[in-house]
Amino acid sequence: MEMKLPGQEEFEASSAPRNIPSGELDSNPGPGTSPSPDGPSDTESKELGVRKDPLLFIQLNELLGWPQALEWRETGSSSASLLLDMGEMPPITLSTSTHLQHRWVLFEEKLEVAAGRWSAPHVPTLALPSLQKLRSLLAEGLVLLDCPAQSLLELVEQVTRVESLSPELRGQLQALLLQRPQHYNQTTGTRPCWGSTHPRKASDNEEAPLREQYQNPLRQKLPPGAEAGTVLAGELGFLAQPLGAFVRLRDPVVLGSLTEVSLPSRFFCLLLGPPMLGKGYHEMGRAAAVLLSDPQFQWSVRRASNLHDLLAALDAFLEEVTVLPPGRWDPTARIPPPKCLPSQHKRLPSQQREIRGPSGPRLTSAEDRHRHGLHAPSQELQRTGRLFGGLIQDVRRKAPWYPSDFLDALHLQCFSAVLYIYLATVTNAITFGGLLGDATDGAQGVLESFLGTAVAGAAFCLMAGQPLTILSSTGPVLVFERLLFSFSRDYSLDYLPFRLWVGIWVATFCLVLVATEASVLVRYFTRFTEEGFCALISLIFIYDAVGKMLNLTHTYPIQKPGSSTYGCLCQYPGPGGNDSQWIRTRPKDRDDIVSMDLGLINASLLPPPECTQQGGQPRGPGCHTVPDIAFFSLLLFLTSFFFAMALKCVKTSRFFPSVVRKGLSDFSSVLAILLGCGLDAFLGLATPKLMVPREFKPTLPGRGWLVSPFGTNPWWWSVAAALPALLLSILIFMDQQITAVILNRVEYRLQKGAGFHLDLFCVAVLMLLTSVLGLPWYVSATVISLAHMDSLRRESRACAPGELPNFLGIREQRLTGLVVFILTGASIFLAPVLKFIPMPVLYGIFLYMGVAALSSIQFTKRVKLLLMPAKHQPDLLLLRHVPLTRVHLFTAIQLVCLGLLWIIKSTPAAIIFPLMLLGLVGVRKALERVFSPQELLWLDELMPEEERSIPEKGLEPEHSFSGSDSEDSELMYQPKAPEINISVN
Amino acid sequence: MEMKLPGQEEFEASSAPRNIPSGELDSNPGPGTSPSPDGPSDTESKELGVRKDPLLFIQLNELLGWPQALEWRETGSSSASLLLDMGEMPPITLSTSTHLQHRWVLFEEKLEVAAGRWSAPHVPTLALPSLQKLRSLLAEGLVLLDCPAQSLLELVEQVTRVESLSPELRGQLQALLLQRPQHYNQTTGTRPCWGSTHPRKASDNEEAPLREQYQNPLRQKLPPGAEAGTVLAGELGFLAQPLGAFVRLRDPVVLGSLTEVSLPSRFFCLLLGPPMLGKGYHEMGRAAAVLLSDPQFQWSVRRASNLHDLLAALDAFLEEVTVLPPGRWDPTARIPPPKCLPSQHKRLPSQQREIRGPSGPRLTSAEDRHRHGLHAPSQELQRTGRLFGGLIQDVRRKAPWYPSDFLDALHLQCFSAVLYIYLATVTNAITFGGLLGDATDGAQGVLESFLGTAVAGAAFCLMAGQPLTILSSTGPVLVFERLLFSFSRDYSLDYLPFRLWVGIWVATFCLVLVATEASVLVRYFTRFTEEGFCALISLIFIYDAVGKMLNLTHTYPIQKPGSSTYGCLCQYPGPGGNDSQWIRTRPKDRDDIVSMDLGLINASLLPPPECTQQGGQPRGPGCHTVPDIAFFSLLLFLTSFFFAMALKCVKTSRFFPSVVRKGLSDFSSVLAILLGCGLDAFLGLATPKLMVPREFKPTLPGRGWLVSPFGTNPWWWSVAAALPALLLSILIFMDQQITAVILNRVEYRLQKGAGFHLDLFCVAVLMLLTSVLGLPWYVSATVISLAHMDSLRRESRACAPGELPNFLGIREQRLTGLVVFILTGASIFLAPVLKFIPMPVLYGIFLYMGVAALSSIQFTKRVKLLLMPAKHQPDLLLLRHVPLTRVHLFTAIQLVCLGLLWIIKSTPAAIIFPLMLLGLVGVRKALERVFSPQELLWLDELMPEEERSIPEKGLEPEHSFSGSDSEDSELMYQPKAPEINISVN
Repeated sequence: MEMKLPGQEEFEASSAPRNIPSGELDSNPGPGTSPSPDGPSDTESKELGVRKDPLLFIQLNELLGWPQALEWRETGSSSASLLLDMGEMPPITLSTSTHLQHRWVLFEEKLEVAAGRWSAPHVPTLALPSLQKLRSLLAEGLVLLDCPAQSLLELVEQVTRVESLSPELRGQLQALLLQRPQHYNQTTGTRPCWGSTHPRKASDNEEAPLREQYQNPLRQKLPPGAEAGTVLAGELGFLAQPLGAFVRLRDPVVLGSLTEVSLPSRFFCLLLGPPMLGKGYHEMGRAAAVLLSDPQFQWSVRRASNLHDLLAALDAFLEEVTVLPPGRWDPTARIPPPKCLPSQHKRLPSQQREIRGPSGPRLTSAEDRHRHGLHAPSQELQRTGRLFGGLIQDVRRKAPWYPSDFLDALHLQCFSAVLYIYLATVTNAITFGGLLGDATDGAQGVLESFLGTAVAGAAFCLMAGQPLTILSSTGPVLVFERLLFSFSRDYSLDYLPFRLWVGIWVATFCLVLVATEASVLVRYFTRFTEEGFCALISLIFIYDAVGKMLNLTHTYPIQKPGSSTYGCLCQYPGPGGNDSQWIRTRPKDRDDIVSMDLGLINASLLPPPECTQQGGQPRGPGCHTVPDIAFFSLLLFLTSFFFAMALKCVKTSRFFPSVVRKGLSDFSSVLAILLGCGLDAFLGLATPKLMVPREFKPTLPGRGWLVSPFGTNPWWWSVAAALPALLLSILIFMDQQITAVILNRVEYRLQKGAGFHLDLFCVAVLMLLTSVLGLPWYVSATVISLAHMDSLRRESRACAPGELPNFLGIREQRLTGLVVFILTGASIFLAPVLKFIPMPVLYGIFLYMGVAALSSIQFTKRVKLLLMPAKHQPDLLLLRHVPLTRVHLFTAIQLVCLGLLWIIKSTPAAIIFPLMLLGLVGVRKALERVFSPQELLWLDELMPEEERSIPEKGLEPEHSFSGSDSEDSELMYQPKAPEINISVN
Repeated sequence: MEMKLPGQEEFEASSAPRNIPSGELDSNPGPGTSPSPDGPSDTESKELGVRKDPLLFIQLNELLGWPQALEWRETGSSSASLLLDMGEMPPITLSTSTHLQHRWVLFEEKLEVAAGRWSAPHVPTLALPSLQKLRSLLAEGLVLLDCPAQSLLELVEQVTRVESLSPELRGQLQALLLQRPQHYNQTTGTRPCWGSTHPRKASDNEEAPLREQYQNPLRQKLPPGAEAGTVLAGELGFLAQPLGAFVRLRDPVVLGSLTEVSLPSRFFCLLLGPPMLGKGYHEMGRAAAVLLSDPQFQWSVRRASNLHDLLAALDAFLEEVTVLPPGRWDPTARIPPPKCLPSQHKRLPSQQREIRGPSGPRLTSAEDRHRHGLHAPSQELQRTGRLFGGLIQDVRRKAPWYPSDFLDALHLQCFSAVLYIYLATVTNAITFGGLLGDATDGAQGVLESFLGTAVAGAAFCLMAGQPLTILSSTGPVLVFERLLFSFSRDYSLDYLPFRLWVGIWVATFCLVLVATEASVLVRYFTRFTEEGFCALISLIFIYDAVGKMLNLTHTYPIQKPGSSTYGCLCQYPGPGGNDSQWIRTRPKDRDDIVSMDLGLINASLLPPPECTQQGGQPRGPGCHTVPDIAFFSLLLFLTSFFFAMALKCVKTSRFFPSVVRKGLSDFSSVLAILLGCGLDAFLGLATPKLMVPREFKPTLPGRGWLVSPFGTNPWWWSVAAALPALLLSILIFMDQQITAVILNRVEYRLQKGAGFHLDLFCVAVLMLLTSVLGLPWYVSATVISLAHMDSLRRESRACAPGELPNFLGIREQRLTGLVVFILTGASIFLAPVLKFIPMPVLYGIFLYMGVAALSSIQFTKRVKLLLMPAKHQPDLLLLRHVPLTRVHLFTAIQLVCLGLLWIIKSTPAAIIFPLMLLGLVGVRKALERVFSPQELLWLDELMPEEERSIPEKGLEPEHSFSGSDSEDSELMYQPKAPEINISVN
């Protein structure tokens, strides 16, 4: 190969942002939005030092209708008349033939002429002979590199200046090539229409088609600077021998309306010849277009200096093609675009691959494997060895970003993020507040939940190391508080003062953890621990939700035919009938049977509430039962649960535009609660409702906002509180740090760094504050924080059909969180509305949270594997590397651990469950004796020591990260975007 | 090409049963079953005159470990010791290297060494260079065709007899090749184990591995006569130049344990050479194996007479490969096997394709397109022009098959079919019987339903033209009977006598239709009519189910807090208290509050039933309300509906073995009813239950089994009955004939022909019988008949991993149906059990039937398209050929028609709806003015005149059936098996 090899800069350009055709980063967030301060993105591209080749749009037009008609791809309706208008052409009749037009940016689209629409984008497939024929045609044909033509006319003159053509033929050919093809135009959204149904002369005003070209929706998606490549192919009866021409224009020129979208053309390829068997020239044209759409070929051909370079690039392409055997694959099947394209750097010669420096591709090989464990950026979890060393470092790291933490929020996207997260936060505050009130007999409640969320959340957003975190009552803390309450009730303690001391102790312990930089231990929490944690909490959620629902059937018993809870009578006091009473009830417009004279003394059949109102006393077994409530509550419970689940699934359905789908799935809980409230209001039954105080004061009657330090408790309970506090500290530490590590994962591409120690410090301080005020306790909530980050994603716009948008980073700032919590605080005045929310609906949402969290972890997938016959199992990576029995063994061990945790949770010693969760780390350590490091690598993650041990032990080649090529395919099955996989928020 | 071209016989062999590797038709239905009388299948293969090549199993073993170790693919644990035992080999140390082993039958499977299992079968992908390198290696190498070697030793001697090898090298190589490789063995089902972990000498007893080879599960799936092809590839340090050898053995020989399964090897390919960059020899080996697995290459190479033929076959392969560009497709991605393989006859040279005679492939091009309309085999729907001509022809056609209609049932499969269809029939009888009883105030009932189903079904099975048909109460007839009942109530008619006359008239009209051969008109019922028919009936089902459910809430009102329906009192007759009464109630072990003395006179709070028992009288507004029933009924309704829906979906899930999944989904209705009954029984509430008479007598009290001809009706109503009878005749004709045409579609490959006229004749006779006995009316039911046929499918066993079983035909006989109906008749004695079935459960099943039927038609898919943004729409065939606006227009017209039908159905004139259904044919005719024949071809089907008109009008090439190659891909998206797409049974 004589042509120059691509330099390192170029290599980085094509490898760093995978999937993105060069030149189309987030530079233009789309029409309608104000110019965005996309600092990090711009810095990123500059920092990579990239000069990118423009994006190439390629179009193939086919010459049709031999021998009667000569014209470029044309619509059936208008072509006949068009031809009649062509004075300079010999009178030819139109033969209806297949109208073939294809286009490429990344993937191929075919014009479905009959349906009048572009096909779905698909991976282009070629026949090998057409590539080979193309090669020989180009080898013999005309290759003009850096052709100076300034217009289509000049270009046509240049390409037809071939010896083999007689002057007459040349004229005919030129006239043909100068004909304007008509394009299918989809300007009006859903209603497809054709460019024009009226005949139009070649000499027509050039403006009209240009306007159409500009209005083309694809045109608006393509980045500025995009160029076009045009391939014209067809069979011409008057040609005696094939005519191949490949032109690279020195300066890209808009070649009239040759391409569907108005772009300056850089490449022009002409493949004509006498008729041959099959669709020879058409397929050759497709081959040429596919070649041009290949990034590597494109790179080479932009730099090619002669025919040899061109052919070398074609040969290099051929070296790399994938071949499917004919008997096992229908060559005309349309393969949908893969989720993840092969990374381009794999395709470079090995020589170049080696010069990749440390500033090279941002995707490390470990990351490539998409096995994102809890291994956070290492420098942030390095022990300094000094007291509070980590905290100080965190503050130092974050301080310089503080101003930008507010300036970076000036983007339209942040408004929608605020709306979304506000609704999620309020839903959370209602649900958890309601459940806490349920669990603590009103020591906590919805009002405290709102207030606490607002205060703690806002304070955290202002101070924390990772301001994207949303604080919330989380599942583990909720469970612990419930246990603590029943503990204090068992010992007849005054709950809130006792709780205050627990809070004080927890804050102290957490400060000790911050001082000793204990956060670095978080690396021992592998997926095993994480999943045990999440699964236990999820199961408790599910169990509690169902349990609470079934409890309602005890409160509102079902009236079976045999049961005697039937009659209820209203008995009036005093002996003897009082006629005036009867008269008093009669005039009311009620069915008179209600108070009819049954010959009874001092009694009527008024319903209990009205009876009491009348001064009577309800007597009878049926007075205390409210019929229909139990089943109606069950219906509400199931409805809200299934509705929320269904809405969550809407996101991946085919219906509705993606905005609607995203909205429905993002607000699934809110919508499910609203539906439940609506159903309840419609029927107007006396279902149990959320308890909300009528005014702004603590839910527990008779307490102020400050909790008294001792209450009625003996003083020494303030010391004894240290013991449960220790357990809670473990829980808080695990919950907080696991979430923090997940939020700071490498794949989110956070620029401003994490602050593990600072975050824990803030949590400790807020712990103290909320305990003093008697508010719920707060730690970072995984799911809602991830949702927050997700709503702040910066993405490249997908310009090419079939391409998925590319993740560029997250708008890191403190403002959205702050505004959310200010709004939450203001929503305390919503309280009067909340009393219309039926409790069964909240239980349904509770169940939904548990089920959603449980189904998001890998453990659940492995449990499902137990039920699947081996041949129906999905092609999971771990199943390729770990024997099925070992996978099942690992799952079984997890199930046993979970069972043990559940047993502990069910005993009176339930409160020690955080200790047992920590014990999972020990179990995981012991698993090293059962499983090999390789197996653990696939089933779990490695602990710090194991990581160090692996290179020493010498991993066998197929297990090493260097990755034989055969493992690359596994990337195809991996999700590209960060995945949410832990914990009930 | 010097080699002989495949003759026509060969061509038919490879094209007739698509997807099936030659030599593996249904000849052996599997171990454990008795030899089957698979007449048609055998006849079929004989009639095609085929001599098939044996199936080829191909295995690639790789030579590992250069330069230290030389051995064939080996397990890590045992290989070291194995090598120490090899006295004749130079002492070499083992290098751990990637263990690569692949195997092919149709698709490639890779041994996942670490996971110890074979990968999922996938489409093999190759790199083009490896194919080219293979070609040059073979061109230079040794090619032995019809090699007479009788053992591995002889073979090894032959292939190493190459000039380039020194004697020493030759010895080394021979020793190496004679080494016995170890195979991964999956004998014990789920628990994978390795062939052996003990070292084993090459001189070991040959028996052990052979036993393992025989026990291999793949071995048991491969048909007898299968042969093996072995490819050995690897890098040998001591070789100076590449060594390629291709051997076709004259007589296939079992080459020791070279292959994983013990098969005689026909082909042997050796690809060795000095180390080179990448995985050169391994990839070349894969290329050779893929080539051998290609049916066309295999065919050629079995007949090749020299090297030239071999290379020509390879070149022919290369001509046909599909090429995927490197930048758009990860070459290592594993492509799952396509649902439908490209048909092999497409791959033959055009010359051969043309000689395809009328006796050629059974798949016609129209069938290839899988657009199976209502166009039944034409000869059966040809008008004879004589009175009863069609009927006579039907009898003549079917009579010769009569004995075989019983003999062909002697197969194990028929037992399971009987069980399945029996349960489905009984479920149907219960559901429709219950609903009919509901709709006709007991004029019909479950008992009548059982009796009628048994009598009519059995009679039809014995007499009918298409004995696979299952007669049942179908939706349309049910709807009509409901309307007829309300009509007769409106005119105060005695229902059953009136109904008898309707039946007499219908039978008469049907006989006229038979006589005039009206069944040929069925071709005017296109999908448009069919879908309107099905959608209307489905909607009525859904509406009725929900309506009946809501009616229950009126019968059992919900008790709202404000409602006064509260109290109920038990009042005793006569003045003054009667102490003895109080004493009588007290000793019962009931809560004494029930009858406590409230100071009332003559009253207690006993529940109404017990009150009545005690001689009292329940008084009060609450006495007639049964609480909780409404919501519980709603729960039962929803539970049975969703449970049935969920079970139906189990069929396509990954869980459980396919037998379990099929069972769950086949019996979804039965299981849903059982669940509903269980729930109801568990709570023991007084839900409304199915009404069943206590003894064997008609449900309507006071009537005998024979309906009196006039009852209390004026005589002239027997004449007036002709009018509704005309409507019912239309309905019966449409329902019966649409079903009949669906059942007799070409793709079911029925051998014994249809009997449209005979079927209608039978229905007419049975109409008369059931009317006289006052039993429900019966016609052919689509869904259950298709289920019947489905349970009698004859399929090829899928021998190759990744292959779908091939549909061979249906066991056409009369016995299964007959036995089903005899069993149904016997089930009348089940009646006492049926009274435990709650009505809401039946309503749920009713809803499920409606929803399932509605969702099966294409119309529903097009309605869904209305809600989908264009880019998310599935790649449907019709969307490729018809503009979206036209598709939407067609859907909108259907919706309007449906709306009009619904309006008519809601008026008092509802009973004329069959006439309006017939009107759909007219609407469809009018649509010809709106849509082009091409569009109608895709959206609907063509009517007889249109079909004739199309060749005249001259279809444009892309629409014609001849099918440009680019349309072939659409086959990939088509279901292979017959689909169920119509009507509520």
